[in-house]
Amino acid sequence: MNTPVTVVGLGLMGKALAAELARNDYPTTAWNRSVTEVPEGVTRLASVAESSPTMVVCLSTYEVMYEVLATADLRGHTVINLTSGTPGEARKAAAWAAGQGAAYLDGAIMAVPQMIGLPQAQLFYGGPADLFESCAPMLRVFGGATVHLAEDPGVPLLYDLALLAILYAAGQGLAHAQALVATAGVSATQFQPYANAWLTHVIGPMAGPENARAVDEGEHATDVSNINTNALAIGHVVRASRDAALPVDWLLAQQARLEQAVADGYGADSPTRLLDYLTEETR
Amino acid sequence: MNTPVTVVGLGLMGKALAAELARNDYPTTAWNRSVTEVPEGVTRLASVAESSPTMVVCLSTYEVMYEVLATADLRGHTVINLTSGTPGEARKAAAWAAGQGAAYLDGAIMAVPQMIGLPQAQLFYGGPADLFESCAPMLRVFGGATVHLAEDPGVPLLYDLALLAILYAAGQGLAHAQALVATAGVSATQFQPYANAWLTHVIGPMAGPENARAVDEGEHATDVSNINTNALAIGHVVRASRDAALPVDWLLAQQARLEQAVADGYGADSPTRLLDYLTEETR
Ligand SMILES: NC(=O)c1ccc[n+]([C@@H]2O[C@H](COP(=O)([O-])OP(=O)(O)OC[C@H]3O[C@@H](n4cnc5c(N)ncnc54)[C@H](OP(=O)(O)O)[C@@H]3O)[C@@H](O)[C@H]2O)c1
Ligand SMILES: NC(=O)c1ccc[n+]([C@@H]2O[C@H](COP(=O)([O-])OP(=O)(O)OC[C@H]3O[C@@H](n4cnc5c(N)ncnc54)[C@H](OP(=O)(O)O)[C@@H]3O)[C@@H](O)[C@H]2O)c1
Repeated sequence: MNTPVTVVGLGLMGKALAAELARNDYPTTAWNRSVTEVPEGVTRLASVAESSPTMVVCLSTYEVMYEVLATADLRGHTVINLTSGTPGEARKAAAWAAGQGAAYLDGAIMAVPQMIGLPQAQLFYGGPADLFESCAPMLRVFGGATVHLAEDPGVPLLYDLALLAILYAAGQGLAHAQALVATAGVSATQFQPYANAWLTHVIGPMAGPENARAVDEGEHATDVSNINTNALAIGHVVRASRDAALPVDWLLAQQARLEQAVADGYGADSPTRLLDYLTEETR
Repeated sequence: MNTPVTVVGLGLMGKALAAELARNDYPTTAWNRSVTEVPEGVTRLASVAESSPTMVVCLSTYEVMYEVLATADLRGHTVINLTSGTPGEARKAAAWAAGQGAAYLDGAIMAVPQMIGLPQAQLFYGGPADLFESCAPMLRVFGGATVHLAEDPGVPLLYDLALLAILYAAGQGLAHAQALVATAGVSATQFQPYANAWLTHVIGPMAGPENARAVDEGEHATDVSNINTNALAIGHVVRASRDAALPVDWLLAQQARLEQAVADGYGADSPTRLLDYLTEETR
């Protein structure tokens, strides 16, 4: 017999989590503020106070979590919080849960609801390793790529926000690209196969292990594409975007870093050198 | 017997192009400003004036191209220009070539040198369709995904710059992500597998045909992830980045668009709606 679990929050993601627990024979109850469709095999609770000792929380924000969990006695409970926020919010919540007498894991879901339960669904956890181990069989139900990253409960959300930075960056770039080709009457659908090939064969490798090694080891020699070429190319993007009246502010810091690297004599090096310029700005 | 070809410019990319022509039994000559290693099977020319009638040009900029080609008589020549620039520069170059009595194709290489000759290497061409057709057997040597996009010679570079916008966006996001996890002592190499999975399983689909259709048809209902959730999440990225003293300017326009969309009552819609906000800014 599997441990009973209560899912708190039945938004797009909470629904997928509850459905997956029920599908895997976990006795699953759920609470949600507004009346909403409950996934098959899930029993709706009228109040969070009726929750099982093991709770999976997936709400909009940490503030909402505090508000909702205030209605329950958490002594002896295990709270697994999959709500998004900042590392600082996760650390505060862990301390708060300890004060309530609850065991606490903070998690980050790096997947969309449709991926929940699949081998490629990536979920990060932080908090006590032994607590993670005892919950792991249940947590692995949500995705094959489930990992405990650190005892520090803030680490999963640090990774989460790092990946989200890439997502929002890429999303901004994609929208910009779609707007740019639209000036020649090209639709997003017509453009899509080219963007897809580009992501797969050029952007993917840029995020590959060789570039990561170059960054870590500070070895920036290249026979691929150098800073000179990229400084010129980002300039073309900026000029053509301005010609199309598209906003370019989001490109200017990176253009400045490329131009500074040229001025510093690094034109023949790989753009992997740019991370040094970025981290220098934080000092 | 294949047509003889001269490659003008033996930088990282020009070398790969010349090598690939020679490997495919095109009698290949090449010119480069500075003395450089010439790929196997390629004959070095002392002057561009000795060029074969078919020329493949791959130099740093259009200005460099004008400077270099000024030394040759182009009457009756075919110039295939794979130098990066703006759509406007490509159109001007086509007019200039016509004035010189040369046939002209403008192209864009959406691949790194190491991909030249592979099936996935994407190359775009613009200019007269019949000229492209007559050169196509030779041009396909450079990559399997070789396409003629338009008679307008500016279109390949428009697509090029659109794809580069995604590349620079993603590169900026990746560097930001690496800097963010570095605050917890996580190296680029440790972070890389997570970023890779994220690119493959989450960012890839965001650039997929379904999202393109949503954009084209203005159908923004979602059961994946809504604007409310993303407006909150980008706020977490901004706050945590500021905590790490990382620059966030590049995220602010997109954050403002997400927040404006929430204020406009579109919180439950998909972020595919954001392109409308971007194109509105161009009016
Ligand atoms: N969707 C994704 O792809 C995805 C991916 C990774 C992580 N996440 C994270 O998962 C969490 C939930 O996301 P989601 O997609 O499920 O969002 P959602 O569909 O907008 O659902 C939000 C949930 O929060 C509840 N809620 C909001 N304000 C509340 C309040 N004042 N009191 C009580 N309940 C309140 C909602 O209840 P009502 O139904 O009553 O409004 C609903 O259960 C977020 O932190 C999100 O970042 C989502
Ligand atoms: N590398 C890539 O991944 C890639 C991908 C797609 C497109 N491209 C495009 O291909 C073009 C060439 O790129 P690349 O990577 O080969 O760059 P590169 O390695 O920096 O080579 C630049 C070339 O331009 C020549 N050049 C520069 N200034 C010159 C001048 N004043 N007079 C005569 N020649 C001059 C260089 O000659 P010297 O050897 O004498 O300096 C060299 O042949 C660029 O437009 C680039 O955007 C490159």
